[in-house]
Amino acid sequence: MTAPSFLTIRYEPGVLTLLDQTKLPTDETYVRLADLESIAKAIETMVVRGAPAIGISAAYGLAVARRTGVPMADADLRLRRTRPTAVNLFWALDRMRPLWADGADAETLEAEAHRIYQEDKASSEAMARIGAELIPDGATVLTHCNAGALATAELGTALAVIRGAHGAGKTVRVLADETRPVLQGARLTAWELMKDGIDVTVIADGAVAHFLGQGAIDCAVTGADRIAANGDAANKIGTRGVACLLHHHDRPTYIAAPWSTVDMSLATGDAIEIEERPAHEVHTIRGQRIAPEGVKVRNPAFDVTPAGWINGLILDRGYVTGDLKAGLANLAG
Amino acid sequence: MTAPSFLTIRYEPGVLTLLDQTKLPTDETYVRLADLESIAKAIETMVVRGAPAIGISAAYGLAVARRTGVPMADADLRLRRTRPTAVNLFWALDRMRPLWADGADAETLEAEAHRIYQEDKASSEAMARIGAELIPDGATVLTHCNAGALATAELGTALAVIRGAHGAGKTVRVLADETRPVLQGARLTAWELMKDGIDVTVIADGAVAHFLGQGAIDCAVTGADRIAANGDAANKIGTRGVACLLHHHDRPTYIAAPWSTVDMSLATGDAIEIEERPAHEVHTIRGQRIAPEGVKVRNPAFDVTPAGWINGLILDRGYVTGDLKAGLANLAG
Repeated sequence: MTAPSFLTIRYEPGVLTLLDQTKLPTDETYVRLADLESIAKAIETMVVRGAPAIGISAAYGLAVARRTGVPMADADLRLRRTRPTAVNLFWALDRMRPLWADGADAETLEAEAHRIYQEDKASSEAMARIGAELIPDGATVLTHCNAGALATAELGTALAVIRGAHGAGKTVRVLADETRPVLQGARLTAWELMKDGIDVTVIADGAVAHFLGQGAIDCAVTGADRIAANGDAANKIGTRGVACLLHHHDRPTYIAAPWSTVDMSLATGDAIEIEERPAHEVHTIRGQRIAPEGVKVRNPAFDVTPAGWINGLILDRGYVTGDLKAGLANLAG
Repeated sequence: MTAPSFLTIRYEPGVLTLLDQTKLPTDETYVRLADLESIAKAIETMVVRGAPAIGISAAYGLAVARRTGVPMADADLRLRRTRPTAVNLFWALDRMRPLWADGADAETLEAEAHRIYQEDKASSEAMARIGAELIPDGATVLTHCNAGALATAELGTALAVIRGAHGAGKTVRVLADETRPVLQGARLTAWELMKDGIDVTVIADGAVAHFLGQGAIDCAVTGADRIAANGDAANKIGTRGVACLLHHHDRPTYIAAPWSTVDMSLATGDAIEIEERPAHEVHTIRGQRIAPEGVKVRNPAFDVTPAGWINGLILDRGYVTGDLKAGLANLAG
C-alpha cells in the first residue's frame, strides 16, 4: 500500500474539496469550494500548496467557473494572479486554455482537469516504484521540506519514493528536518507520514550534521522545483546544505521529480534566479516576533544543489545516476 | 571601542542586576535581585544564560546570600541545583567554597566574584585582540548561536573576535543564523550586535550553504563548550554543519573560547556525551505548536566538530592553527 489515507484534492462536479493546509498540523479540516473566487483565494492563502497541487486545483477552478457562469477569460486571469511564481499553475492553465477558448462545456473541462490529476498520480507512482527498489530495507532516510501527498495529486515526489519502499514492505525510518522558515517539514511532512503510519522523527535543520556524524542517516531524498540539463537542481532553501553534508559524510542524496521539472534549455543551475521571500517569514513565527525590530533579514526561498552532490535523479521517466547530464540527455531523446 | 553598550551583569553591594534575556529581543529590561532565591530562579529560568555569565552570577549570588544571612552551605546547594549541566557554574562555586568554608565575610566573597568577572573580561579582551588581526577588513562573518556579551562578563568569545575587528576600525558584516531550536542567533546575537552598531543580518540555518555558494561568506566564528586535546570542539547543535559546509566551500571556521574550555584529558571529541533537551523546544515555538501532537522528536543540544574542519582556535592564551593537537599541547605546557 503506497496510497495516502487522505486526499489533498477531491473533485465532484461543481465542488472542489481541499484539505486546509493552513490548519495543519493541529487540525485536519476540509473546505468545500463551489465558486471560482473561493478557489482562487484558497490558492492565494496556501490552503493548497505544492506546485502540482496548485496546478490541479486551478484546472478544477476553471471547470467550476464554467459551471457557475463566470466568463472564462476572467476566470483564467483571476487564477493566474493567485501565485505569480508557480510554474505549474501557468502550465495547467495554458493546457486548459485551448479547450475553453474553443467553447468546451464544463464536463469537457472537468475531464481535462481529471487527466492532469491522473497524470500527476501516475508520475508519483512511477517514482514510488523506483523507491521500492532503491531504498534499502531498514534505512533511515532524511527528507527536507514537504514533497509529499500534500503537494501533489496523491503520493508526492520525495515522499512517493519513501511510500514506495514502505509499501513494498521495507522498514523505513524518516527524519524530517523542520525546514525553516516556513516549517513544511515539521508541519506537513511529519503530519502526512504519521497519518499513514510511516515512522517519522522531527529534527532541527541544524541537527543534520550531528546525526550524519553518528552514522544515523543512510540517505536523503528531496523534491526539486527545477532541474538543469547537467543535473543541478533548484529546490527549497536548505536542500543544498543537506546534499553537501550527505556528500561529505559519504551518504547518497536522491532528488525525485516529474520530468516536467527538468528544463533541458538550462545548461546548468547557475542561471536559475533565486526568489527572495518576505522578511517576516524569518523574523516572526506564527505571530511571535523572534528577531529584533528593524533587523536586516535575507530570506532566499530556494537554493541550487550542484549535480556533483546528487547521487541519483528519481524521475517518472526513469532513474538517472552516474553522469547525470548524459542520463538526462538520454531520457530527453 | 570593543566594549558593549550594555551590561549583562552588574553588581553593587547586595544587589545583582541582570539584563533579562527571556524578554529579548523585544524588550531590554533589567531585574534587580537582592536575595539568594531570586538569583537562583533567574539562573534557572534563563534570565541569565551562557556558561561564563552563569558562573559569575552564581558567585555574586553567594555574596548576596552572605549579606542576607542565608547559611552558606544551603546557598551553595541551592545554586548548584539551578542548571545541573553547566560546567562553569560548578567551577565558580568550587572556587568560592574554600572562602566561605573558611568564614570569609561578604566583602571578601564579593571581591572574589569580582575577580572571576574581571578574569572573564580579560579573557574576552585577549580574544578580541586576536580577532582584530585575524578578521580581514571588509569580511562577511557567519556566526552561530550567541557567544557574545550576553553570555559572558562583557565582550563574549566569538563575538569578542568580531567586536575586536570592528573596534580596530575594520568593516565587518555579520550573518547570524537563527540557531534553532532555541533561536539564540535570531534573538540574542542579532539584538546584541544591532545594539552596538555592528552590521548584522539574520538568516535561516538552512540558508548557510546558499550564501556560501554565492561567495557571500568569508569565514565563520563560533564559540565552544568543550575542546578536546586534538582540537575537536563541542558546541551548540548546528556548529558541526556550519564547519563542514565552510570547509567544503574552502572558507575557514574559527572557534573562540577561554582556555578553561580546553579539556586536555579528552584525547578526542568522541567521548563527549551529547545532552538531549526536551522535545518541546522543537515542536513548539513561543507557545505555538509547529509539529503534530505526538510526533517523535530528537533534540540533541550540542554537536562535535572534528578538528579537521576547524582552521583556528582563538584562545585567550593565544591563537592555534595548523596542527591543533600540537598547538594545544604547546599552550598547555
